[in-house]
Amino acid sequence: MITIFTGNGKGKTTAALGQAIRALGQNKKVLMIEFIKGDWISGEDKFFQKFKNVNFKIIKTGRGFVKILNDHLPFSAHQKAAQKGLTLAQKAIKSKKYDLIILDEINVAVALKLLKKEEVLKIIKNYPKEKEIILTGRNAPKSFMKIADLITEMKEIKHPFLKGKKAQAGQEF
Amino acid sequence: MITIFTGNGKGKTTAALGQAIRALGQNKKVLMIEFIKGDWISGEDKFFQKFKNVNFKIIKTGRGFVKILNDHLPFSAHQKAAQKGLTLAQKAIKSKKYDLIILDEINVAVALKLLKKEEVLKIIKNYPKEKEIILTGRNAPKSFMKIADLITEMKEIKHPFLKGKKAQAGQEF
Repeated sequence: MITIFTGNGKGKTTAALGQAIRALGQNKKVLMIEFIKGDWISGEDKFFQKFKNVNFKIIKTGRGFVKILNDHLPFSAHQKAAQKGLTLAQKAIKSKKYDLIILDEINVAVALKLLKKEEVLKIIKNYPKEKEIILTGRNAPKSFMKIADLITEMKEIKHPFLKGKKAQAGQEF
Repeated sequence: MITIFTGNGKGKTTAALGQAIRALGQNKKVLMIEFIKGDWISGEDKFFQKFKNVNFKIIKTGRGFVKILNDHLPFSAHQKAAQKGLTLAQKAIKSKKYDLIILDEINVAVALKLLKKEEVLKIIKNYPKEKEIILTGRNAPKSFMKIADLITEMKEIKHPFLKGKKAQAGQEF
């Protein structure tokens, strides 16, 4: 089953995390590959660091945000990082090690041209049918949406950033 | 901060669960009150049963789905159950025991007339500002949306039920 959480609203990665909790509760094994986020420590990292006996693995291949904030990396470094993530995803999808594979912000990696959508499609479309794959990130390509079983668009109706609040620990990361 | 996850798509409760994981990672304490779901055991229940030392509590006040499936309960039993949930929510919001309080499917409880929206509003609008409250469920009342800081509409684009698949353990519950 392929699920896509897309749209401009908050809740895409958190919904994937919630789905991971449900899967772990059913004794499934989960891998999350983060394609965009850098190596800072998020709430979910801290949570799963405390519970090392959980079958949940987070791999961060992202090198931080691309072309915004304090991004001093050459574009090729971001591309290389995303490519590494995709190779890991390919291995994970083929292996028996994971039941649920979350490709976090992979839609964004494609939109930023860090990955070719054809390459991603080739890897995800022939997945073993007993597995679940979740793709997150705004601007999901149409070709991904075509092969997905479940798609939710998270649509922003109201966001505190618009009112000038800062990101809060445990809320935004 | 008040967050609303509404809309007809999948991901509202799971996004709240993901938010709970982030909060727990930041050493916050979380309560989830389930207003609609009955007492069957979901993936998240099983997950948190394994980790009793986590500061996460789920209380199920719901008596199952209302007026659909095999609902043989009188309407007043559902109302009483929802009212109990609201009283617990009121206590939790006032107490120092929880930092994040998830009122799961409370929007639906209001839409089904199990709860009066004015009563809910009275309880949530004067919450201590350091706390976070998440309301989930489709058809969030306008008065809730007015006082919320963050609102995401989860919009269904594609759903496997439309294609006739059954709910899967670890996926839908």
